[in-house]
Amino acid sequence: MSAVDRSSLAPLPSVIYEPILDAALREDLGRAGDLTSDAIVPRELRVTGELRAREEGRAAGLDVALAVFRRLDPSVRADIHIPDGADVAAGQVIASVEGSAREMLSAERSALNLLGRLSGIATVTRQIVRAVEGTGAQIVCTRKTTPLLRALEKRAVRLGGGANHRFGLDDAVLIKDNHRAIAGSAAEAVRRARAHAGHLVKIEIEVDDLTELEDILALGVDAVLLDNMDAATLREAVGIVDGRAITEASGGITPATAADKAGAGVDLLSIGWLTHSAPCFDVGLDVDLGTV
Amino acid sequence: MSAVDRSSLAPLPSVIYEPILDAALREDLGRAGDLTSDAIVPRELRVTGELRAREEGRAAGLDVALAVFRRLDPSVRADIHIPDGADVAAGQVIASVEGSAREMLSAERSALNLLGRLSGIATVTRQIVRAVEGTGAQIVCTRKTTPLLRALEKRAVRLGGGANHRFGLDDAVLIKDNHRAIAGSAAEAVRRARAHAGHLVKIEIEVDDLTELEDILALGVDAVLLDNMDAATLREAVGIVDGRAITEASGGITPATAADKAGAGVDLLSIGWLTHSAPCFDVGLDVDLGTV
Amino acid sequence: MSAVDRSSLAPLPSVIYEPILDAALREDLGRAGDLTSDAIVPRELRVTGELRAREEGRAAGLDVALAVFRRLDPSVRADIHIPDGADVAAGQVIASVEGSAREMLSAERSALNLLGRLSGIATVTRQIVRAVEGTGAQIVCTRKTTPLLRALEKRAVRLGGGANHRFGLDDAVLIKDNHRAIAGSAAEAVRRARAHAGHLVKIEIEVDDLTELEDILALGVDAVLLDNMDAATLREAVGIVDGRAITEASGGITPATAADKAGAGVDLLSIGWLTHSAPCFDVGLDVDLGTV
Amino acid sequence: MSAVDRSSLAPLPSVIYEPILDAALREDLGRAGDLTSDAIVPRELRVTGELRAREEGRAAGLDVALAVFRRLDPSVRADIHIPDGADVAAGQVIASVEGSAREMLSAERSALNLLGRLSGIATVTRQIVRAVEGTGAQIVCTRKTTPLLRALEKRAVRLGGGANHRFGLDDAVLIKDNHRAIAGSAAEAVRRARAHAGHLVKIEIEVDDLTELEDILALGVDAVLLDNMDAATLREAVGIVDGRAITEASGGITPATAADKAGAGVDLLSIGWLTHSAPCFDVGLDVDLGTV
Amino acid sequence: MSAVDRSSLAPLPSVIYEPILDAALREDLGRAGDLTSDAIVPRELRVTGELRAREEGRAAGLDVALAVFRRLDPSVRADIHIPDGADVAAGQVIASVEGSAREMLSAERSALNLLGRLSGIATVTRQIVRAVEGTGAQIVCTRKTTPLLRALEKRAVRLGGGANHRFGLDDAVLIKDNHRAIAGSAAEAVRRARAHAGHLVKIEIEVDDLTELEDILALGVDAVLLDNMDAATLREAVGIVDGRAITEASGGITPATAADKAGAGVDLLSIGWLTHSAPCFDVGLDVDLGTV
Amino acid sequence: MSAVDRSSLAPLPSVIYEPILDAALREDLGRAGDLTSDAIVPRELRVTGELRAREEGRAAGLDVALAVFRRLDPSVRADIHIPDGADVAAGQVIASVEGSAREMLSAERSALNLLGRLSGIATVTRQIVRAVEGTGAQIVCTRKTTPLLRALEKRAVRLGGGANHRFGLDDAVLIKDNHRAIAGSAAEAVRRARAHAGHLVKIEIEVDDLTELEDILALGVDAVLLDNMDAATLREAVGIVDGRAITEASGGITPATAADKAGAGVDLLSIGWLTHSAPCFDVGLDVDLGTV
Repeated sequence: MSAVDRSSLAPLPSVIYEPILDAALREDLGRAGDLTSDAIVPRELRVTGELRAREEGRAAGLDVALAVFRRLDPSVRADIHIPDGADVAAGQVIASVEGSAREMLSAERSALNLLGRLSGIATVTRQIVRAVEGTGAQIVCTRKTTPLLRALEKRAVRLGGGANHRFGLDDAVLIKDNHRAIAGSAAEAVRRARAHAGHLVKIEIEVDDLTELEDILALGVDAVLLDNMDAATLREAVGIVDGRAITEASGGITPATAADKAGAGVDLLSIGWLTHSAPCFDVGLDVDLGTV
Repeated sequence: MSAVDRSSLAPLPSVIYEPILDAALREDLGRAGDLTSDAIVPRELRVTGELRAREEGRAAGLDVALAVFRRLDPSVRADIHIPDGADVAAGQVIASVEGSAREMLSAERSALNLLGRLSGIATVTRQIVRAVEGTGAQIVCTRKTTPLLRALEKRAVRLGGGANHRFGLDDAVLIKDNHRAIAGSAAEAVRRARAHAGHLVKIEIEVDDLTELEDILALGVDAVLLDNMDAATLREAVGIVDGRAITEASGGITPATAADKAGAGVDLLSIGWLTHSAPCFDVGLDVDLGTV
Repeated sequence: MSAVDRSSLAPLPSVIYEPILDAALREDLGRAGDLTSDAIVPRELRVTGELRAREEGRAAGLDVALAVFRRLDPSVRADIHIPDGADVAAGQVIASVEGSAREMLSAERSALNLLGRLSGIATVTRQIVRAVEGTGAQIVCTRKTTPLLRALEKRAVRLGGGANHRFGLDDAVLIKDNHRAIAGSAAEAVRRARAHAGHLVKIEIEVDDLTELEDILALGVDAVLLDNMDAATLREAVGIVDGRAITEASGGITPATAADKAGAGVDLLSIGWLTHSAPCFDVGLDVDLGTV
Repeated sequence: MSAVDRSSLAPLPSVIYEPILDAALREDLGRAGDLTSDAIVPRELRVTGELRAREEGRAAGLDVALAVFRRLDPSVRADIHIPDGADVAAGQVIASVEGSAREMLSAERSALNLLGRLSGIATVTRQIVRAVEGTGAQIVCTRKTTPLLRALEKRAVRLGGGANHRFGLDDAVLIKDNHRAIAGSAAEAVRRARAHAGHLVKIEIEVDDLTELEDILALGVDAVLLDNMDAATLREAVGIVDGRAITEASGGITPATAADKAGAGVDLLSIGWLTHSAPCFDVGLDVDLGTV
Repeated sequence: MSAVDRSSLAPLPSVIYEPILDAALREDLGRAGDLTSDAIVPRELRVTGELRAREEGRAAGLDVALAVFRRLDPSVRADIHIPDGADVAAGQVIASVEGSAREMLSAERSALNLLGRLSGIATVTRQIVRAVEGTGAQIVCTRKTTPLLRALEKRAVRLGGGANHRFGLDDAVLIKDNHRAIAGSAAEAVRRARAHAGHLVKIEIEVDDLTELEDILALGVDAVLLDNMDAATLREAVGIVDGRAITEASGGITPATAADKAGAGVDLLSIGWLTHSAPCFDVGLDVDLGTV
Repeated sequence: MSAVDRSSLAPLPSVIYEPILDAALREDLGRAGDLTSDAIVPRELRVTGELRAREEGRAAGLDVALAVFRRLDPSVRADIHIPDGADVAAGQVIASVEGSAREMLSAERSALNLLGRLSGIATVTRQIVRAVEGTGAQIVCTRKTTPLLRALEKRAVRLGGGANHRFGLDDAVLIKDNHRAIAGSAAEAVRRARAHAGHLVKIEIEVDDLTELEDILALGVDAVLLDNMDAATLREAVGIVDGRAITEASGGITPATAADKAGAGVDLLSIGWLTHSAPCFDVGLDVDLGTV
């Protein structure tokens, strides 16, 4: 697998995530709006704010965060210092925004919740990508994403240097142990999937036992998911596959165990932890009131 | 603060979270549905599945997870073994569900994503609640929640033994440093908030410097937020407040530092980490295919 | 209670009410649009219109009404003569708008329906506020609002000089007679509410019988609702409370009876009539066709 | 015009108003739900409640109100005593409902807000219908309805004995003074409308000056709107029209002036006041706690 | 019936169709967006594209198609060569658009799907309108439209020179055979409809048997639907009606049979085929890459 | 390519299409509902109706159509005679439904519009599938579907015996001529796509000129799209590809030309006409009023 070319990472079309932004703002503003800022901040006051990293990591979700600010105040102007997908040092300013003080404070939490979550995902992804550097293995995420944020989180994984697995149940076949058991055999499961899926749909199958591997490969699957195997077993599996399918290791992989498994020669490590448990990246909004 | 009485924890009305469930399922099913299960699983096959904890913790979100299964298969029957808010041991079955195999597999990931996230929040909350046991301090969450899941996550905090801070910008006044600076003084900020807010709206104000505290208390605020203070300073602040307002400590509190700060005698510790960085609770669906 | 400071009345963020505007316009335009204006009005014709009060009162909802016009014709320009919250004389122009004739006529009814309703609420609120002037009592609204318009109507009450009670069931506790009866006693009801509600949630309790009042006050509630009492009883209640809680009179208060009850010294008069029965304010759109 | 046959009044299909009910409940429940009832009311408690009229009038919207209760508690059972469109005496029970106490209290306000508003409209409509009894004139409403509630309010007018004018801008042509002025003449306006509108679309035109009436009738319009005319002028107009078109009087008609204008022989009196200013009908929920 | 005056055809207000556009784009972009264009097309590349007819016909839906392009790229500039409702020759450019290459390619299919469908409807409508030229009969569509696109498709019929029948079940009464049978007689059906429908609602009734026609006309209906009659029978029916109602022929009319039926003297031919089976108009987007 | 196994065709989960059904019903019912049926049909009348094919073809969309009836009348009972994906003769009953007469008539058109459209697609697909029988070529649809109905229409193609191409821009890469031109070469376009797309995403590339084919195959693409080639050229292309990629012929294929192109040995024929121009299948609802 070649390295991911981050330069080709197009921002998501806003038509996809605008309903999320609107719902997030409505969730925070409630029925009455921002009581505190409405009470205290003069309507005409304009300020400059800096979105500043409070720790080292990788930025992701800046376009979405800025869209939150603009949703409450279309006059916001922004200077982007650290674009999505770039590394940021602790204390560095990711972007500075200039606009109405009241709306900026009202939008702050909604914007930071998204920016922190997405940068958190990019940051841990980058960490694991670096841990496996040189092995040729790619780090991919799973469907264990936050409900309603999948598109944004999958993109954050890519901004962290990882790649994307399926986006949903409908864009690839992944035959898991339950499916195989229900079908009666791996061969029958693959046969049913082939008959059902369109010609542009790839088929991957979970393998628990290497003795089945040769038979499965004979069925012509695109990828094999090697679940919960140790590095030695993975290495053996990679040897058997011998390039006839993509090899993916999965199952409770953490930053601590990733390098070992990647060293086994698999093409991919898939890690649910990237999206279901990545800690929030610490980022804040510093408002410059010197000019007030 | 008295201990939270979990027995009074009503489930959220489903009218509040149904749109989230529907959107989560649509996000995963996409346009074509579950290619794999549709291809492989016979339509008439019914099975039993067990939602089983893979680690020790506290259950939260089971009602929501079961609603996900029922949304795809209204005939699902469930036996609840560990109700929301109860502790669960590693390996224990939280609930068993019986229904159509195909729909159960299609709903699995959406249901588990919610159950794992909410139980993760309840579990870390319980951990910190226990760490501060005996101090009288309550653990509360913040507005640093997952966009669109605030109501569900706030309830998970309560199921973990914590309590809830504001649900949004509109149900209480919280005067932060930026507001105070814009108003010119704490007194002016409180005065403006009082004039603006209704009679059932409480006012809390962030305090950074104990020399201001006496003046602020004289304004008659309901609570003071003591941000980023060490235990000694917190203790001094609690002494000055002397019961005239609720005292809340905040700022980067972790399980490791919570007990120390709670020991200072504050009423509340507010911890964004509960919702923005709680790791997912490990829970899986074991399908019994012995009967297939 | 200090007088409401109308100068701090921020407009509602448009993200809150935009779905209402869109739905209102779709409700009026239906599937085929404005048959009459489409048939008769040339596309390129631009005109000036004046939103003119046909009676004396107080303006409210102008920002929303102008947003309706702009939704159909983004090129609309408006001059605001009577801003939201200001008094308007019969015959006075509230705002003049310049734009496409066809879209202005199509939007007219939707805009006026909102402007008339909200100004009607502000006008009757102001009338009662004036009736109680000098008593120190504040006029507050209830949850008896028009479905889906609560945020807009609550703001109209404030523009009329009133204040806001709870916005919903979730931002304050209000223990009514049914709750008290179910709990078995006022004390038990308050105890349950305290254990359940967060630290920034106030508790109010309805009182029907003054002999209970002392006990209730001993529970430390924030406010007492004195329902359906005459002025003498209210005065007695205020004496008993003696500043230990906010006192609110409610129950069928009309402009005719407000002053009498306010004179009893209560802090608040809550009046459902402000929002559930305020007559529409008479306002029209005069189009200047002299230039056609 | 024959009398309205109320027996044919089908309930609105629920698919039309369900989104309104859901939005109304979400508006009241907010993010946290009903804090008070959740804290105080035991989950398993079931009670009986009576929707009781507190004044004399006509019931409307009962189906919608019951749907609100059922949305929170699908197990609710209802006995309808006064069906939609029937008269109700002060103190009479409109319907009794049996269900979960907690959900019944949570739904109460949302249900009553709709029932009160719609019954208020039916009640004032009935009052005016009675005032004009014997004249042959029908009472009709306008498009001055509450945003988003038009379908429900128009039905309430019918339940009160009135009839419906246009439901929107798209189901009939109504040429007003501005349209006529823009077209240059009534004849030209009618000509343009005829060319534009489909064969099942009726055309009505506003007439301000009786000298134009003969010309307008010659154009073959379906109805003429006689705006702001006194009874004598209306009578003269009716004489000129002589059955060649439907005659409709409009303009600030109140219960006090309706009989006089109806006596002039017009077919219809259209009254915006029915929907924009009808006071809420006083109806409450009495919960029977004797069995608790 | 006079010829339709296409010059008065206002575009639909965008507030009506914007949700359709957004949903169409989300349907095509899915969760991950346009994989191909995102991977290959440089972000900064701008190009010119031409919407070119690949066959002869009539343009409809250009405003909607351009709105699709602008939704992904607000900077798009368009030159319209063939406005909605004008004829276009094979090979002619309908409009040229200039904008971001990536977004233009991403929007292409969604825009063309709408433009092709609507122009297809306009084109077949025009074809039949021409086939009946000189007969005085108007071509009208039915409610057999594409779900959710009715407003757009009805407008396309008009752009093709046809006219519109009912837009839905609620803007006119159309008594079909089942209604008549349920009522017991045509007379009873009309009587019930009259009592129910407002004064601006027209009534049409389906007639299967000419012996009933005289009785039906005596009831004063606005239009009669002559279903599945041959030309001779239609001519006889028109003679009986003799101008006392609008006459409409319906039932499996095709371009081949339209002229014959129109020649019978009916006012209208209604044809479901216009909207339910019109073939898509062939139109493509030619991107000029000479400048790349 | 093996024949499509229709027996595995799961119905779409209703959570995917319910919003479409609701919107379709609201589009037809409008604000006032079904004026005609409400006026004429007694509320308590129940009838039996038969969904009867008026021509020979293949049924598709019956589950969706029945869901429309049930949405207005949950008590509807249905007997399915011709399940989705089975052939139906002219005059045959597809399903019989029993329920409330009024709601059945109100839902009729919305249900039939969907059933007719989807069966129309299945019917023409089956026709072409039969035309190419024996060639081994599969018939696939494109993204030229009706906006908002893609999931339903793609399933109809499968019910007709065809297969599905991409469901959107995000589930496979399809490099078209514009992409290739922008990239500078086919090789560069494929390289960019590989670097961007996940490991379960297939890549197809359009080929216009056979001299490029060998180079493109060397890049390892999954499929080649042979656009607008005659049968001889297609045969030559198939020979060059020699099983190294899936071969797909496209470009204006009709029932008349399909067999010829399929005979060239390609794996797939993709035909936009299946979804963008399939005529509606003629199906009606016969209501049995004998029992009325």
